[in-house]
Amino acid sequence: MNLNDVLKIYKNPGADEQEMLCRRGIANVDAVRATVEDIVERVRCEGDDALRNYAQRFDGATLTDLKVSQEEIDAAENAVDSSLKEALKTAYNNIYAFHAAQRMHPVQVETMPGVVCSQRAVPISRVGLYIPGGNAPLFSTVLMLAIPAKIAGCRSIVMCTPCDHSGHVNPAILYAARLAGVTDIYKVGGAQAVAAMGFGTQSVPQCYKIFGPGNRFVVFAKMLVAQMGIAIDMPAGPSEVLIVADESANPTFVAADFLSQAEHGPDSQSILVTTSEELARAVANECGRLLETLPSRDMILKSLAHSHLITFDSDEAMMNFANLYAPEHLIINHSRAEQLAEAVVNAGSVFLGPYACESAGDYASGTNHTLPTAACATAFSGVNLDSFVKKITFQTISADGIATLGPTIETMANGESLSAHALAATVRIDYVNKSRKQ
Amino acid sequence: MNLNDVLKIYKNPGADEQEMLCRRGIANVDAVRATVEDIVERVRCEGDDALRNYAQRFDGATLTDLKVSQEEIDAAENAVDSSLKEALKTAYNNIYAFHAAQRMHPVQVETMPGVVCSQRAVPISRVGLYIPGGNAPLFSTVLMLAIPAKIAGCRSIVMCTPCDHSGHVNPAILYAARLAGVTDIYKVGGAQAVAAMGFGTQSVPQCYKIFGPGNRFVVFAKMLVAQMGIAIDMPAGPSEVLIVADESANPTFVAADFLSQAEHGPDSQSILVTTSEELARAVANECGRLLETLPSRDMILKSLAHSHLITFDSDEAMMNFANLYAPEHLIINHSRAEQLAEAVVNAGSVFLGPYACESAGDYASGTNHTLPTAACATAFSGVNLDSFVKKITFQTISADGIATLGPTIETMANGESLSAHALAATVRIDYVNKSRKQ
Repeated sequence: MNLNDVLKIYKNPGADEQEMLCRRGIANVDAVRATVEDIVERVRCEGDDALRNYAQRFDGATLTDLKVSQEEIDAAENAVDSSLKEALKTAYNNIYAFHAAQRMHPVQVETMPGVVCSQRAVPISRVGLYIPGGNAPLFSTVLMLAIPAKIAGCRSIVMCTPCDHSGHVNPAILYAARLAGVTDIYKVGGAQAVAAMGFGTQSVPQCYKIFGPGNRFVVFAKMLVAQMGIAIDMPAGPSEVLIVADESANPTFVAADFLSQAEHGPDSQSILVTTSEELARAVANECGRLLETLPSRDMILKSLAHSHLITFDSDEAMMNFANLYAPEHLIINHSRAEQLAEAVVNAGSVFLGPYACESAGDYASGTNHTLPTAACATAFSGVNLDSFVKKITFQTISADGIATLGPTIETMANGESLSAHALAATVRIDYVNKSRKQ
Repeated sequence: MNLNDVLKIYKNPGADEQEMLCRRGIANVDAVRATVEDIVERVRCEGDDALRNYAQRFDGATLTDLKVSQEEIDAAENAVDSSLKEALKTAYNNIYAFHAAQRMHPVQVETMPGVVCSQRAVPISRVGLYIPGGNAPLFSTVLMLAIPAKIAGCRSIVMCTPCDHSGHVNPAILYAARLAGVTDIYKVGGAQAVAAMGFGTQSVPQCYKIFGPGNRFVVFAKMLVAQMGIAIDMPAGPSEVLIVADESANPTFVAADFLSQAEHGPDSQSILVTTSEELARAVANECGRLLETLPSRDMILKSLAHSHLITFDSDEAMMNFANLYAPEHLIINHSRAEQLAEAVVNAGSVFLGPYACESAGDYASGTNHTLPTAACATAFSGVNLDSFVKKITFQTISADGIATLGPTIETMANGESLSAHALAATVRIDYVNKSRKQ
């Protein structure tokens, strides 16, 4: 297939053109707003009844129990192919090892004699994970969310995922959930799942933080509950990759990465940035060749319509553009990949060298695949162990400590016209001074 | 002053009554929605002109330059009392020491032979801090936000704060900003400041994350820009303290802490939880006595109307209630404070023992005072060094690494019907195998 008409090469774009190339499609929330607001309100008021009605309406399933039973989970074990089970275990081990290494070192500092400040990671006691159904069973996302929740020590790990019309949840999802330590699974999909975990129903317990991907309805439902003070992992948009490559890169590798991102959905975006126009042409050719073999061809062609090949004169210009774009996934397939990595300011997750394909991180190398999109990488981290804990600070102050620090507190509190704040120090200083005289 | 009518004692409340006692006042955003939406839209479209118009309208100031000049910052040095400067330096040192100790240890794990995953903290390049004007100059908040931003390595630390009608910013705020390393200060207040930092204007640069407290207009403006994908520190509500105390606690200390929280604003809340009814009565008496001396008396009386004294039968019941309430500030003034601290699940910042008053942490001990309110402590951390960085993951995979990990990626990708994801592994495995045969 010849993609020369689809994949145009932009050469050395100027500032304005770069800004245009960084623009993401903006989801039109107006189209889903009324529907989602209605769903959230109904779930809030009617609880399980609303969830059963939506399961009937959207999934075609008549449900009595919303909760997946132990028998269903046990049965999944036999329904999953043994090679997939092995693959899930390998992925589990790698994801576990990398996230366990993220455990926080306790912090304790005596900032002044007698004034000891410390910081501890305390798990969020109940978290809610949303796993979409739809075209494909996203068992990889189950691992990516539940493994760090378990390592963090979350006591209750709730999961919602839609069932099929006969009321079954995909067995690979159930198998991954058990492997990773999910505690409760419910047959609830879409915006109604987010509402159920956000507010709680008779069956689904209220969760303090909601994680997971989803369609426009799910994403908007997460924004709605976030406005009501419930924590969410991050804002979500279409998936994207930016590949930085020089003439050393294998065009087949680059093309496969380019296409793999494009296959996520019709609004996904792949960008190649290179100092080699020859590579850009070769990648376009390889994309055309590889595309012939792929079942997801039609989906990929839609994404390619808003994907770009861009050339720059220097590595510096490439990395500047990469930071301006702030990609969810950044592949640096370059002879000096490690050196260029030092210049990364804005990215979700970075893949270095010829062999680190994005799909390694999507599935099994150990890093998380829930990452900031739509330039949110300027300020947001991907999901990591921190996402499942609160870092709580503690302080103890001795009698000597308050005697030393107290006057500073008094002066600052009075400077801010907060006299009772000053008083809280004063009554203690007076007490300590009096005790000393005795 | 006798507060027996105001401060009623709840004895051993049951589950329903506990839930009622945990309820926070819900801010009515409808009252400010239209105003804030209009302000945000105008700032977005009209930029500096809108900011100058609002400065005229809300602050009574006619401004040419929105940016605070170097001369104004220099002049602040002389205008601030030397005792306040000394106090600010002491607070600076303590806050710096505690936040510097929070620097992340780099994480690197070889999850499988040839598969190396790492995680690095990369500063958010431009952050925006909002410092309210109004009744009191919150120079302490300048330190709490700018010091960790500086330690994190944020290149640009933008601050907005309203000026008075003659166009001046409070000198203590300017002094604290210089001390802490703020790079640019603008005379912009209210919702318009949040919009300016969120979208950028001709003068104010666009910031990737916005921090800081404010009134209902500011808080709602932050929620609005957050919906558009701009990061904010956390949702904000009225300030609150929960004090856990046993019979060993000094009632004067407890009363001073109770009142100091109540002085923050008319919707602030103070809660005392104790196993000693005698202490509860003594605290009520001491509140009445101390209140007489305080200039902020009228404000405090408003808050006390929705503050509570509660008794429980056991330490366990007290800590259960504390975790249910999930307070912004938790004071454990108890003979076994350190032991009870182990049971803390939900809290913003914790103060242990008789001498650790909340105002120590509000100003100068070293911990941060920007903390989650309204039970958000169930899922949110207070501002800390993490708030100013992104934790970006990196991975390198060797030829041997992809040969080992590749089949796992292929199996999982095919299981999720993502054939191009599998292909990205396949083309590399084939290449490696071919190279080996040669």
